[in-house]
Amino acid sequence: MAVDIEGIVAHYQAKINERLGLFFDEEIKAASKISDYTQEVVANIKEYTLRGGKRLRPIFLIYGYKCLTEANIDAVIEASISVELMQSYLLIHDDIMDEDELRRGKPTFHIVYEHICNTLFGGGATRKFGENIAILAGDLLEAYGIEVLTNSRFKEEYVTRALRKYAEIVKNVGYGQILDIMSEKKNAITEAEILQIHKLKTASYTIENPLQIGAILAGAVEADLEVMSNYGIPLGLAFQIQDDILGLFGTEEKIGKPVGSDIQEGKKTLLILHALSNCSEKEKGYIISALGNADVTMAEIDRIREIVRETGSLDYSKRLVAEKIEEAIHAIEGSNFRVEAKDFLVKIADFVGVREF
Amino acid sequence: MAVDIEGIVAHYQAKINERLGLFFDEEIKAASKISDYTQEVVANIKEYTLRGGKRLRPIFLIYGYKCLTEANIDAVIEASISVELMQSYLLIHDDIMDEDELRRGKPTFHIVYEHICNTLFGGGATRKFGENIAILAGDLLEAYGIEVLTNSRFKEEYVTRALRKYAEIVKNVGYGQILDIMSEKKNAITEAEILQIHKLKTASYTIENPLQIGAILAGAVEADLEVMSNYGIPLGLAFQIQDDILGLFGTEEKIGKPVGSDIQEGKKTLLILHALSNCSEKEKGYIISALGNADVTMAEIDRIREIVRETGSLDYSKRLVAEKIEEAIHAIEGSNFRVEAKDFLVKIADFVGVREF
Repeated sequence: MAVDIEGIVAHYQAKINERLGLFFDEEIKAASKISDYTQEVVANIKEYTLRGGKRLRPIFLIYGYKCLTEANIDAVIEASISVELMQSYLLIHDDIMDEDELRRGKPTFHIVYEHICNTLFGGGATRKFGENIAILAGDLLEAYGIEVLTNSRFKEEYVTRALRKYAEIVKNVGYGQILDIMSEKKNAITEAEILQIHKLKTASYTIENPLQIGAILAGAVEADLEVMSNYGIPLGLAFQIQDDILGLFGTEEKIGKPVGSDIQEGKKTLLILHALSNCSEKEKGYIISALGNADVTMAEIDRIREIVRETGSLDYSKRLVAEKIEEAIHAIEGSNFRVEAKDFLVKIADFVGVREF
Repeated sequence: MAVDIEGIVAHYQAKINERLGLFFDEEIKAASKISDYTQEVVANIKEYTLRGGKRLRPIFLIYGYKCLTEANIDAVIEASISVELMQSYLLIHDDIMDEDELRRGKPTFHIVYEHICNTLFGGGATRKFGENIAILAGDLLEAYGIEVLTNSRFKEEYVTRALRKYAEIVKNVGYGQILDIMSEKKNAITEAEILQIHKLKTASYTIENPLQIGAILAGAVEADLEVMSNYGIPLGLAFQIQDDILGLFGTEEKIGKPVGSDIQEGKKTLLILHALSNCSEKEKGYIISALGNADVTMAEIDRIREIVRETGSLDYSKRLVAEKIEEAIHAIEGSNFRVEAKDFLVKIADFVGVREF
């Protein structure tokens, strides 16, 4: 059966964006009754959330639900934005922590408010001001996500269980982020630690948990959620490793950020870590001196690519991606979920391996 | 009927602290399976939360429940810590925003992690590191609060409704904090704005909403929640205004912070605002120059006290406290709630007016 994966994704992206827009318009209206300032903050949160993003998490949530039923599909689309609101909250707080100034080609939230502060009140501690409003914006978004779930039109029993999962995600991502910050500061990390951070920060949170929330809203039993773990965790890992590969070997045009920016930021990806433990001492020194160097040249990036190839690290990572995708597909194919949903989940897993963005 | 208010408060404080301890020990155990770092962060969150605090919010939650029933009292004590976890989250994020270094006589959370960073990894951007871990600690606490409610032993219908209220509180406090930050930066605020900030940041969040969450868990109807608003909002305002009075006219020994620290911090309390609009131009200049001056002397504080007295602002504020308490007591006495709970709520309202700490 042919699945028009891009068509399906575009269809749900449009629905999700529409719901997000409606949700924020209600919140803006409510905030406008408090003050112009609160109205403006919520309007900026809307702009930040709607300025881009693939809406992968809500789509997985919808398909987790569709694994079991397609009754009340509108209700699950409404509920699905909860995980996008969570994503927005995490990005805003992450941007503060990383001191990033750009997100999806536009100023990060704390930079938006640094500018607004300058315009409204003139100079002086405007960065701090921007960060403070951004901390609050993230806190608000976390509450919005909970609000959406509590207002969703499913049995309260399912909603409570979905919220328990929601809290679990926030905890796991938080723990993953703590590990990430610590290992960056420590400047030493093992392959096992990288895989653990990927699992906590990306794999569970991007695929496994959204699928599970959707399934819970459809009345899933524990065995259903296990299938979603067996599918979502390996696929999430594959997704992250593919991301690392594209970050070094992709094109700026396709990945939407400069090639090698992971190197500039000093990110120790699996790719780099594998190369470091399989190259010569001289090459090792070369890579280490490039990591975290904001002025790294394209020629240096090329040399690192060469080392990554020669040490077999690129092949190793590609093989890992293929294996993990295979594992994910195997898990979903063996399930008794609805055929339409299974077909979609198999196709999107395949897609992770061939994607160039 | 004589109500031993201090005995009751001490009884529930002990129960709440015990539950908090048990809750954190479980979370520490779970976090220890991830890494030593995550375990340590949760252990520090426990220390921060348990180092002090009057536990007013969980006590109001318990009494909101007791207004309607006293069945399953242990279950509501378990659930009550959700609002203390929220309080801890808000304090940690507030401390970052205000750049405060002390909370309850010990280092604020970001300062704790500034020190840990220094010890573990040596110097360099350690304040930023501390703030990052503190942002995450707050985010974790918000999730812990949700977790506690989703795991509570009440009907799912009630739990979902309680979580809707929980999200509403986080939103309102966030909006109040935005107003507060903005008006501080703008350096201009009206009495109406101060009262609005008090309502959003303190009144609803300290008394009204915890009472309502408790009542919801007991199966309250809308009319019950309205009584709690009619009691909680005026009492919360009285509480805040009394706080401002004690901040200027109390003793350091009783209030646990230096007298006049509100002046040092440049806080425009209702007391100060009323004085500013009723004093001479010369006195106005005097107050304004003291506001936000970290080196303000005791003699200057004394002079401001005098102005506040002479302009009738102290009397005005005291009268407002008394009126609001009267209003709160009237609301609760007219209700058909359980007598034991009503007695307690009347007594604790009276207590707000005479308290010296």
